[in-house]
Amino acid sequence: MTVRIAVDAMGGDLAPDALVQGSIKAAAAYSDVQIILVGQREKLPAESTLPLNVVIEEAASVMAMDESVENLRKKRDSSIWVATKMVKEGRADAVISAGSTGAQMAAALLLLGRIPGITRPGICTVFPTLKGGSVLFDIGANLELEPEQYLQFALLGKVAAEMLLSRENPTVGLLNNGTEEHKGTDKLVAAHQLLKQSRLNFIGNYEAREIMSGNCDVIVTDGFTGNAVLKTSEGLARTLLSLLKQELTAGVMRKIGAALVMPGLKNLKEMLDYKKIGGAPLLGVNGISVVCHGSSDAETIKSAVAQTLKLYNSNFVEQLRKQAADFFNE
Amino acid sequence: MTVRIAVDAMGGDLAPDALVQGSIKAAAAYSDVQIILVGQREKLPAESTLPLNVVIEEAASVMAMDESVENLRKKRDSSIWVATKMVKEGRADAVISAGSTGAQMAAALLLLGRIPGITRPGICTVFPTLKGGSVLFDIGANLELEPEQYLQFALLGKVAAEMLLSRENPTVGLLNNGTEEHKGTDKLVAAHQLLKQSRLNFIGNYEAREIMSGNCDVIVTDGFTGNAVLKTSEGLARTLLSLLKQELTAGVMRKIGAALVMPGLKNLKEMLDYKKIGGAPLLGVNGISVVCHGSSDAETIKSAVAQTLKLYNSNFVEQLRKQAADFFNE
Repeated sequence: MTVRIAVDAMGGDLAPDALVQGSIKAAAAYSDVQIILVGQREKLPAESTLPLNVVIEEAASVMAMDESVENLRKKRDSSIWVATKMVKEGRADAVISAGSTGAQMAAALLLLGRIPGITRPGICTVFPTLKGGSVLFDIGANLELEPEQYLQFALLGKVAAEMLLSRENPTVGLLNNGTEEHKGTDKLVAAHQLLKQSRLNFIGNYEAREIMSGNCDVIVTDGFTGNAVLKTSEGLARTLLSLLKQELTAGVMRKIGAALVMPGLKNLKEMLDYKKIGGAPLLGVNGISVVCHGSSDAETIKSAVAQTLKLYNSNFVEQLRKQAADFFNE
Repeated sequence: MTVRIAVDAMGGDLAPDALVQGSIKAAAAYSDVQIILVGQREKLPAESTLPLNVVIEEAASVMAMDESVENLRKKRDSSIWVATKMVKEGRADAVISAGSTGAQMAAALLLLGRIPGITRPGICTVFPTLKGGSVLFDIGANLELEPEQYLQFALLGKVAAEMLLSRENPTVGLLNNGTEEHKGTDKLVAAHQLLKQSRLNFIGNYEAREIMSGNCDVIVTDGFTGNAVLKTSEGLARTLLSLLKQELTAGVMRKIGAALVMPGLKNLKEMLDYKKIGGAPLLGVNGISVVCHGSSDAETIKSAVAQTLKLYNSNFVEQLRKQAADFFNE
């Protein structure tokens, strides 16, 4: 069966080129996928020059990166609205965008709606760890969370760990500035109690220094902190690898040594390449909407398509709905 | 002139041993320093066995790590209270503790008082960067900040960058989840405006991925986020270096290579060794109070003494007072 993915061709710093090229790469790499490039036809390649499984859907306008989300209601012809609407109408199975996250989230909320029991959707990523990755959730959709939302995100994150990382009875930790129960803001203290009383496999407060150990499958946090953790890691990894290269190539002996250890370094770099991760699913909405970083290049878009296929083929959203219904109706 | 440093000998996970050994190391390494070990005499070595410039001041009780700060008022004989009181009474020039940060802050507030214009003190650290370090402030004393407090911390951080890092007209950035002016919570948006209107060298919102570039001298944030940034970096650096070691020693050729590049790796590890940084000054109180991590070992305590000497010798607190008076009375 062909999976139809609507790609917002106009969103992102490198749009439309990165989106078009990434879609073409993905269309060549994955069988049984059809990409629908949604955007301004005059800015896109002629459909006749595209592979057979890449088509175009016209959307006359664009939601700019820093445009107020309020404008979305008036811009029913914007690429993100049209792409998300295709999912609602059953003309596409998922939507991918590297444009304004706020607009993407609003379109998903308005058109696809929420999963019952979930107040607001969040953005979920798989963070690289020594044990094959952990779910970090939220990474930017909600700057602040209410105590019940931490609980909701813990449930969504648990399902993500099961489906995306094949974990059984995943452990859940609450990101906090200390492990003791009373740590953190009043909201975190209250969230801790809700998690403790739930039937999730809650292991307590979790500190950011432990994330990479991989000893916790799901790390729940507000979007502001999650974003800071992700960007700190990104910056540090980038800086360390460039420093390492500098250090390792200062002097002849080190240069020889560096040549010998290079395969090891490449493995390491691979593991920390955030581009390989691609997109991050918006969890909590009734459908698949995958958020890509604004600076995504063609390679990232290709990875995001791969990830979207995985989400679709695992019946991810159905599983979320089912588990949320069980959890909140108990 | 001898600088007298009161060390809370009973605070910290490794107390009193790490404090005693660290103090002895520091007393041997730095001339013109006198260490006053404050604590329960029966748990400390006999004074006659200590170096001449290490003395003991009796304090009968201890504020436990997780003890409610409220108890401090009743525990006037606790080591942190007695040590801080010595500074107030002019019997010591600075206090160092690896005990409960809350208790240390409360003792400093009650005994030393605040610098006029500053609502609450914060904890300041120098974060390693490609350009010799940046001030990151706050890293844990205040989980949430009001807009005016971001401004106050920016000023304190600016003075720290001048005095500790010899920066002229230091650049100040506001840690946020995006660079655009409207990014972040309502409080961050308001703080942005206050900073923009001030006469500080404000360069706008700053993202965590840029911290290590060193392109911003002072990064202002709330203590919860600062703590997350610091701990994320700590965990990532530790994990990366151990991964690297693993990768570099898998196979004979890589092992030979690793031996050749080892000096380069050691430089890198050195740079990221948070233990070398030692303590973090509590800025905003009227005196020198240096916060050490609860897990500090003797080496960390020695570094903290070195840092405290630097703070004292540069007339740091006088400079803070002077600049705060100018800034807030304009």
